[in-house]
Amino acid sequence: MGKVLVVGGTHGNECNAPWLLKTLRHVPAGLDTAGLAVLPLLGNPEALAAGRRYLDRDLNRSFEPALLADPARGEHELGLARRWLDRYGPQGQEPCLVALDLHSTTAAMGNCLVAYGRRPADLALAAALQQRLGLPLYLHEGDPAQSGYLVERWPCGLVIEVGPVPQGVIQARVVEQTRLALEEALALLAEARRGGLPQPRELVVHVHHGSLDLPRHGDGSAAAVVHPQRQNRDWQPLRAGDPLFLDQEGRTLVYEPPAELAGQTVCPVFVNEAAYGEKGIAFSLTSRQVWPVRPEWTEALIQLAGGLDDA
Amino acid sequence: MGKVLVVGGTHGNECNAPWLLKTLRHVPAGLDTAGLAVLPLLGNPEALAAGRRYLDRDLNRSFEPALLADPARGEHELGLARRWLDRYGPQGQEPCLVALDLHSTTAAMGNCLVAYGRRPADLALAAALQQRLGLPLYLHEGDPAQSGYLVERWPCGLVIEVGPVPQGVIQARVVEQTRLALEEALALLAEARRGGLPQPRELVVHVHHGSLDLPRHGDGSAAAVVHPQRQNRDWQPLRAGDPLFLDQEGRTLVYEPPAELAGQTVCPVFVNEAAYGEKGIAFSLTSRQVWPVRPEWTEALIQLAGGLDDA
Repeated sequence: MGKVLVVGGTHGNECNAPWLLKTLRHVPAGLDTAGLAVLPLLGNPEALAAGRRYLDRDLNRSFEPALLADPARGEHELGLARRWLDRYGPQGQEPCLVALDLHSTTAAMGNCLVAYGRRPADLALAAALQQRLGLPLYLHEGDPAQSGYLVERWPCGLVIEVGPVPQGVIQARVVEQTRLALEEALALLAEARRGGLPQPRELVVHVHHGSLDLPRHGDGSAAAVVHPQRQNRDWQPLRAGDPLFLDQEGRTLVYEPPAELAGQTVCPVFVNEAAYGEKGIAFSLTSRQVWPVRPEWTEALIQLAGGLDDA
Repeated sequence: MGKVLVVGGTHGNECNAPWLLKTLRHVPAGLDTAGLAVLPLLGNPEALAAGRRYLDRDLNRSFEPALLADPARGEHELGLARRWLDRYGPQGQEPCLVALDLHSTTAAMGNCLVAYGRRPADLALAAALQQRLGLPLYLHEGDPAQSGYLVERWPCGLVIEVGPVPQGVIQARVVEQTRLALEEALALLAEARRGGLPQPRELVVHVHHGSLDLPRHGDGSAAAVVHPQRQNRDWQPLRAGDPLFLDQEGRTLVYEPPAELAGQTVCPVFVNEAAYGEKGIAFSLTSRQVWPVRPEWTEALIQLAGGLDDA
């Protein structure tokens, strides 16, 4: 048996979810948990107080078993990851079975979901949420440069991502979007626990293909910016010849699809996210795919949700 | 005789103006300086590299004569302020007569101007820019908690402010808005130098009246957020009973005008600017006023512009 872990402030300069969690503490009836036992967690209180994404390293790239097992690694965020797993991990002191990690972004992603890998229960929850709220799904997988995400360490988990919103700013609209997706996810988990999860026939998935950096000079400094015709167009198809970047001389650099993406519908996501500059990511490329929803996904989620505690 | 000082990156997490200055260095013909000698300056390169507004203290509150004269004050930004005044101040090694300081904001301020105090030459330049581009003007004055602005130390100077844009993000549209206002300001200074500055009959001024903080708990933590109906409504009139804040219990707190503002048109500015949280400012209140443009303003600017160097 276990609870649903709801994390806000995994990144300390994304302060909308922490505000949502704070209002929930002040008004116990503020969040409709659909009868489930929910454990709200401020992911990185020290980074939140400092107004920074992290102190030593990105907490949402720190849930890497090899890193966590290395006693020589003493970074603040690895300490947090170990503590949260000890306390709230599936074998923790207060075990949680599902992790919902609430993020915000400076990119115009709208209200959306991110899943890591192709775990059946995650896909079932995402498909049900997509049917209810129309949320697009970004499936992140197979990128060795980007790993160690928080929700991967729980048996089921999704990121709820809302944007655009500047870092360090609470906007009531963003808080409400976050609450809407969170409450619907909890309602669906409760339905799964009762054995009756409604599912669409198909799931639209944006599968991670890789990331593009800005063009750079030899010294590493940027030689171009995101093209104004690409800014705020997350999820919208990118076609051969479409503008990508604007260089320092005012020239437009256009998209040339790599051979392996020929014939696929390619959609950029996380366009011009402030925090990804240091990761060398101007945006990520996804391939839009339509998958039939498989019965074994639903079965996996119903089985897991059967172990969720009452509020 | 002197140049026009054009400053970008006074705040290190406002990176649109630094990008504009960078493109200008790469393409000498990229900025139309209207024949004037322009001195581009990266205000706080160390803060820009760190992706922070400042290292020790806000550079744009550091141009305070008493602070600058105190040898015991060794903060990074006071060192910068002293250096820029020694080099480019009106009596500096490479004297500048006008300072244009390029900023961006997370608030929906659009493309606008900020002047400090009621210096005739500033008001003449602002009025001419307002006539050409329709830019609103925020007149900041008489606030002992907010002083020491950069442009105050040059005989004439304005801030060009563009938003909304997240901190740490370059958006090509914001760069172009900044360039547009900057080029028009230089063109008007060149016209003033030729003695023929065109002026409107009236100047619309938003006069600073004070700032409102979020409601807070006894421990200093926020007890409410900016109301969603006030977000992104910079410059728009605020009337008695209009929603201001949304508290933790979901209650709306409304505006009650102070007696001294009764009968005036009150417009909030810098609504929910990320950097002002630490200053205890949720937004500032201005009084919208229409002033006749006075001939002595124009004369002051024409006299000053007569001393501007050729490119």
